[in-house]
Amino acid sequence: MCTSKRQMRLGAFIMATGHHIAAWRHPEAQADAGLNIDHYRELAQTAERGKFDLVFVADSPAGWDRAKDHEALRRTAQGAHFEPLTLWAALSQVTKHIGFVATASTTYEDPYLLARRFASLDYISKGRAAWNVVTTGADVSKNFSIAGHPAHADRYERAEEFVDLVKGLWDSYEDDAFIRDKESGVYLDPDKVHLVDHKGKFFSVAGPLNVGRPVQGYPVIVQAGASEPGRELAARTAEMIFTANQTFEDAQEFYSDVKGRLARYGRRPDELLISPGIFPVLGGTEAEAQANYDHIQSLVHPSIAWNILARHYKGIDLSGYSLDDPAPPLPENTELNKSRLKLVSDLVSRNNLTLRQFYLAVATARGHRTVVGTPEQIADAMQSWFENGAADAFNIMPPILPTALTDFVDQVVPILRKRGLFRHEYEGTTLRENLGLQRPPNGFVVQARQQQVQAVV
Amino acid sequence: MCTSKRQMRLGAFIMATGHHIAAWRHPEAQADAGLNIDHYRELAQTAERGKFDLVFVADSPAGWDRAKDHEALRRTAQGAHFEPLTLWAALSQVTKHIGFVATASTTYEDPYLLARRFASLDYISKGRAAWNVVTTGADVSKNFSIAGHPAHADRYERAEEFVDLVKGLWDSYEDDAFIRDKESGVYLDPDKVHLVDHKGKFFSVAGPLNVGRPVQGYPVIVQAGASEPGRELAARTAEMIFTANQTFEDAQEFYSDVKGRLARYGRRPDELLISPGIFPVLGGTEAEAQANYDHIQSLVHPSIAWNILARHYKGIDLSGYSLDDPAPPLPENTELNKSRLKLVSDLVSRNNLTLRQFYLAVATARGHRTVVGTPEQIADAMQSWFENGAADAFNIMPPILPTALTDFVDQVVPILRKRGLFRHEYEGTTLRENLGLQRPPNGFVVQARQQQVQAVV
Repeated sequence: MCTSKRQMRLGAFIMATGHHIAAWRHPEAQADAGLNIDHYRELAQTAERGKFDLVFVADSPAGWDRAKDHEALRRTAQGAHFEPLTLWAALSQVTKHIGFVATASTTYEDPYLLARRFASLDYISKGRAAWNVVTTGADVSKNFSIAGHPAHADRYERAEEFVDLVKGLWDSYEDDAFIRDKESGVYLDPDKVHLVDHKGKFFSVAGPLNVGRPVQGYPVIVQAGASEPGRELAARTAEMIFTANQTFEDAQEFYSDVKGRLARYGRRPDELLISPGIFPVLGGTEAEAQANYDHIQSLVHPSIAWNILARHYKGIDLSGYSLDDPAPPLPENTELNKSRLKLVSDLVSRNNLTLRQFYLAVATARGHRTVVGTPEQIADAMQSWFENGAADAFNIMPPILPTALTDFVDQVVPILRKRGLFRHEYEGTTLRENLGLQRPPNGFVVQARQQQVQAVV
Repeated sequence: MCTSKRQMRLGAFIMATGHHIAAWRHPEAQADAGLNIDHYRELAQTAERGKFDLVFVADSPAGWDRAKDHEALRRTAQGAHFEPLTLWAALSQVTKHIGFVATASTTYEDPYLLARRFASLDYISKGRAAWNVVTTGADVSKNFSIAGHPAHADRYERAEEFVDLVKGLWDSYEDDAFIRDKESGVYLDPDKVHLVDHKGKFFSVAGPLNVGRPVQGYPVIVQAGASEPGRELAARTAEMIFTANQTFEDAQEFYSDVKGRLARYGRRPDELLISPGIFPVLGGTEAEAQANYDHIQSLVHPSIAWNILARHYKGIDLSGYSLDDPAPPLPENTELNKSRLKLVSDLVSRNNLTLRQFYLAVATARGHRTVVGTPEQIADAMQSWFENGAADAFNIMPPILPTALTDFVDQVVPILRKRGLFRHEYEGTTLRENLGLQRPPNGFVVQARQQQVQAVV
């Protein structure tokens, strides 16, 4: 065992009943998971027992319309679930170490209110908050009294301004602003409170925030976009990227491309951790793992199969096809975002899939890497990417919850640990410390120092 | 002891270091309270030990500007604190019975996002969420990329539409929409999912919400406005009003006025609970209570005294005055809202206060009723209002936290209980049940039933 080796980071990507689209039907799944706080409590505590760095939830501010998404509503468990910030605030009180990544949209949230909530979560959790910055690919404008969904480029431009503004608001109070001297009656030094006075293309916000500077300086910034502007935004602002790659070559290309972009923003490669998703299907033997995989695949109802296909083949008549026909090329005009479209298109063409194989591949892990095997084989699959420039971390996507997370913690984590790849104990008290990320200095303080230096020169 | 008597409800209005403006300087105060989660945890658990119905926090989405509010920032503890929804989500996991009232603004929040967060909190807390609906009196538009602060009448009109819309979103899923039958693969009945399809003056929102119908149907709706449109909005939509009354006569007038408005909305008087604030200063004897009061008043720094006076006498030159001169009449053009202005104006004229007495009265409890005395005297003061048509409940405003809440629970609550006025155990599992409020039916279901009846007729 060698503990000075570079260490792998682990996230548990929690999706209510599990990542498989039919997970909720599995005998081991918690069918009401999306709105069952005791279930999420168990998941966070299991992940913490495994010394995971973080738990992660996806999010979109919209529900499913019964007219348009009838079968998806009827047969999947994904329509109703907790809002991430309230969920993580709750779970921070029943855990001590694990970090919390909440997904929130720069297209549909308000920057002042969101900055406050993340700052509040960071205090409540004593420095364990992270924000997965998304621009929301799907059009959910119907819920927000606005004219329509902004185009891709506009969303990224807005995201950039939004993140900068939020960081400015988090800097409202300098770290040592609070004096709290009961004797003299001085509570804080007003000279250490700043207005952000932001006037940009999308926002005009004065500030200051009404929360102190977050425990971590800023909550950890996570991103998930893989498009060109997504990669660039990540290189400039993200500290962790959650990514979807099927093959080692794709993962390596993504890894080296994004790491290569950091220098132009004055950043070192280790200031941004790259975390591919992985969907592990475990078994005591290979045959057992395969049987577990086949079992859960068998739970996909045929109407959901055709529903998945229809969503991917929008505008194409599939009525002449059977599920065992080869999958035709995917059209461009789907509801998928570009990077997701490329991922599934590659999947189809690379493996010459039938329509059945295609919907099963999508049902499994929505385009993420699937590994079916023994605990040793899962560990091997992770180690090879980790040691060959394709990953710094992994976002584990358990097929069925809670059991597949428990199995991973009990069966795979000990192997990673034995190989010296993963921690025995948490290193720090904040998420940032555990991830090996630095606490950012206050932008106003940095600026003032630069002005002083210039004045002296 | 008579337990069939009408029962008093109790809320703990929690304000970081305590309600007195100089509370943080008191030796017993937790000086960093605003951002100390362990402190709030202790408060919620203390209130629950006392079988309080609820804890309550005020809120405004703005911080203090060091240029404009220099002395307030420098000498008070109120500039930085938790955001209510994340705070209550956290504390719901370390309590079992107590309800959580979060203040949130219909002027500055988004209805879809807020509906989600409250629904999420209601699930997380297993039915203990409440929303204190405020329109935000102070102009905080500078933080929200909008042209300016809406006028009073516009804010109330918007509030009305906002609350109706949020209730509609909470009704997105019927209570029995979820089937979750693993065998047949039917997760829910799509016919029991509704679009709110709201198109109003201020908002256009389709829905559905992506959270199930809240455990309580709707979180309990609380309001605090005392203006004419505030009273009317409360009569139409609120289930509890938090009010500020100095005198029994005012409290009784308010109580009978608001209760009298309910009938025109088809509501019974017991569907709306009226809860005046009370600022109790306790002592083992009257003399001790007075000494405690004098001690905390002595902690107000002179510069804060003049700061308080300047805010109330905006536009009036007080430089010729000493603190022992009689307080002149208050001007109309303060930053105070109308009902608050009336309250403090009455205070000045009723008692012929000096400027010192005036600022001390405001510093104490911001216009709320102050009672200085023994535990028996505090209980008497509450009982007389409760039994004579001036209150159904009280929002207890402890001068210093955490100790003044602990003292109230240990010294006053047992007396109320002995007199048969207050519970020994929680009656129900949800806040609604403990408050004796009915669970509202789903609006879509009610509408459909009405249409059926009309069709038959």
